[in-house]
Amino acid sequence: MDRPQSNYFGAGPAQLPLSVLQQAAKDLINFQDEGLGIGEISHRSKPAGKVITDTKAHLKELFAIPDTHEVFFLQGGGTTGFSSIASNLSAAHFGKTGEVGTAAYLVTGSWSEKSAQESERLGVPTEIICNSKKESGKYDSIPETKTWAGKLDAKKHSYVYFCENETVHGVEWPAQLPQELIDSKVPIVADLSSDILSRKINVSDYSLIMAGAQKNIGLAGLTLYIIKKELLDNIAKVSPKQLRDASLPVSPIATEYPTVVKNDSAYNTIPIFTLHVIDLVLKRLLERGGIEHQQEENEEKAKILYDALDKFPDFYNLPVNKKFRSKMNVVFTLKKEGLDAKFLEEASSLNLTGLKGHRSVGGFRASLYNAVELSSVKLLADFVTKFAENN
Amino acid sequence: MDRPQSNYFGAGPAQLPLSVLQQAAKDLINFQDEGLGIGEISHRSKPAGKVITDTKAHLKELFAIPDTHEVFFLQGGGTTGFSSIASNLSAAHFGKTGEVGTAAYLVTGSWSEKSAQESERLGVPTEIICNSKKESGKYDSIPETKTWAGKLDAKKHSYVYFCENETVHGVEWPAQLPQELIDSKVPIVADLSSDILSRKINVSDYSLIMAGAQKNIGLAGLTLYIIKKELLDNIAKVSPKQLRDASLPVSPIATEYPTVVKNDSAYNTIPIFTLHVIDLVLKRLLERGGIEHQQEENEEKAKILYDALDKFPDFYNLPVNKKFRSKMNVVFTLKKEGLDAKFLEEASSLNLTGLKGHRSVGGFRASLYNAVELSSVKLLADFVTKFAENN
Repeated sequence: MDRPQSNYFGAGPAQLPLSVLQQAAKDLINFQDEGLGIGEISHRSKPAGKVITDTKAHLKELFAIPDTHEVFFLQGGGTTGFSSIASNLSAAHFGKTGEVGTAAYLVTGSWSEKSAQESERLGVPTEIICNSKKESGKYDSIPETKTWAGKLDAKKHSYVYFCENETVHGVEWPAQLPQELIDSKVPIVADLSSDILSRKINVSDYSLIMAGAQKNIGLAGLTLYIIKKELLDNIAKVSPKQLRDASLPVSPIATEYPTVVKNDSAYNTIPIFTLHVIDLVLKRLLERGGIEHQQEENEEKAKILYDALDKFPDFYNLPVNKKFRSKMNVVFTLKKEGLDAKFLEEASSLNLTGLKGHRSVGGFRASLYNAVELSSVKLLADFVTKFAENN
Repeated sequence: MDRPQSNYFGAGPAQLPLSVLQQAAKDLINFQDEGLGIGEISHRSKPAGKVITDTKAHLKELFAIPDTHEVFFLQGGGTTGFSSIASNLSAAHFGKTGEVGTAAYLVTGSWSEKSAQESERLGVPTEIICNSKKESGKYDSIPETKTWAGKLDAKKHSYVYFCENETVHGVEWPAQLPQELIDSKVPIVADLSSDILSRKINVSDYSLIMAGAQKNIGLAGLTLYIIKKELLDNIAKVSPKQLRDASLPVSPIATEYPTVVKNDSAYNTIPIFTLHVIDLVLKRLLERGGIEHQQEENEEKAKILYDALDKFPDFYNLPVNKKFRSKMNVVFTLKKEGLDAKFLEEASSLNLTGLKGHRSVGGFRASLYNAVELSSVKLLADFVTKFAENN
């Protein structure tokens, strides 16, 4: 099965490489010529176990994950992650110190804001350490480290949370974390749902990485976690009753991290087809030169599009502070009114799709995830150039 | 793409109809000739919304779901269901009465047992109303209604829970619920993960039906819920703080039923490909004559296999009380020792696979879910006959 090249810039679920989809389609019907599809076998069977083992191994290789860390998968996406982080990381702090900690959130967009809200909703003492929300409700920057890093306190804070790439507003943290954040010794927790495997990071700096699959690494339905092993031990020290007595939330058993890890991500029925698609994406990344190659390509893609837009400062408005512009989600609006529909129509007629901005921001958003081809981005850059020249 | 007929009797994830897989494979790559796969589009896009709407409509038609009830989907499977039921149904009782209720569990196998354990783990007052576990740790029956129904109390109990078909032990409740259970007026909650859409039931009798997709209706990753609407109103009356103050668990936001329903199952990113597969299964069921036809076929399949096994009472041991034998999971052991490996080998040489019993029970289990062909069951019945004659 084939299809024409898609130039789809949607924010997620996002485009996947055609070769991955073709292999996945084959394996859905007949996996390894065994006469059954990969989605039809027991999650505790040997071939399913191999998919889990392979995916973990490929991820460790790609992301240079050290032995201090463990990889596991949970169903759901970021939203499920918000809840599971609040309950598991509070439990880890309680297990280590015997005290109820405060969760620290760095809010730089609507996803980190939602995550902080969920922590509060579940009854975890929650502190917003910084918040770059403007009066308009929009976010366009990341507050300077010196304005907030001093508030972090390893005795008080169970963890410090941020979202590395805010998909809605197009704000992205630098790949190199601020040294003051690392020096605070507060366990660092990050949502990488929309920039996972798009660039190199130093996994050792993180106590927990959480990333929904549906943007850079696969279909919706699974979320990957990379956790520092000592956290698992600390969570396992606390019983549900102890948590309840301390007025801390008890995670549903299917998202209790030590239980999931002990059962190699198959405590409950892991969607093996969905995991297999992730593994196909990872294998392709490895074959194409790993994360270094992907990062180079992503940087080139982002540069081409931002350069094209920046050439017309009177026509295009790029709201995000240059230093924190996302390489994954390029957000822009038109300065002239009344042209938005025309922009989308003309783009669509060139088969450039998925460009409408998030309803809370308006304008346009071009998501340049790993699977978006360089040639698609060039087409889009040509189009924004011509559209500015003609209007 | 094609494959030879599979005679796979695994307990789940289970075989799916080949025609469904073929269509799914096509749609994974290019859905409705739009140039993108069904897994690559936004869960809030029109085509994704249509998949949600269609799946709900087909399910309502197939299962004759009345307007008093609402359908929604959650990520995860039964285990996630155990947790979400305990928190949401406790909240509903609290919202309605202002009092903390006790959850009532009818334990007739390891899945209902696990569900009761999760309710306790989350801090919900939990009462085991009946338990048919034998000293050996096995289950082979459902206790007589008169021994337990009198314990149910609509003022005290927030809900009464049971698992309609216990996959591990092969014990299934009758399709017609005991009248005393209905008359108790305690909200009835049932796990239908392994017999959903295998037979007609009276949906009106239930306050909540929960069913993981991966046995009768699709791939792993989604669970369907059918809920009486008044429960949603009662849950929505209570704030997370009120629940915490009453020492009741707060459900993670992604599994808080009113939030999910308000957002038409797309509060968070619903795996649309996985849902689309469910819809393809439902459409096929409708085309083949609905649940009546499927039930007839399932009854025939079960009769053929049980009859074949019953013909050799000195050779095969069928542990489950005849009245409660599951039509979905036929559990049996060999009376002679040392023949188990031979049984599996010879079956496998005839391409009869997935027959090994659950590790906690041993012996064999033939799962006869909807997608298992009548002809496969006939082959298996022939085999068990010959194997008994020859050994």
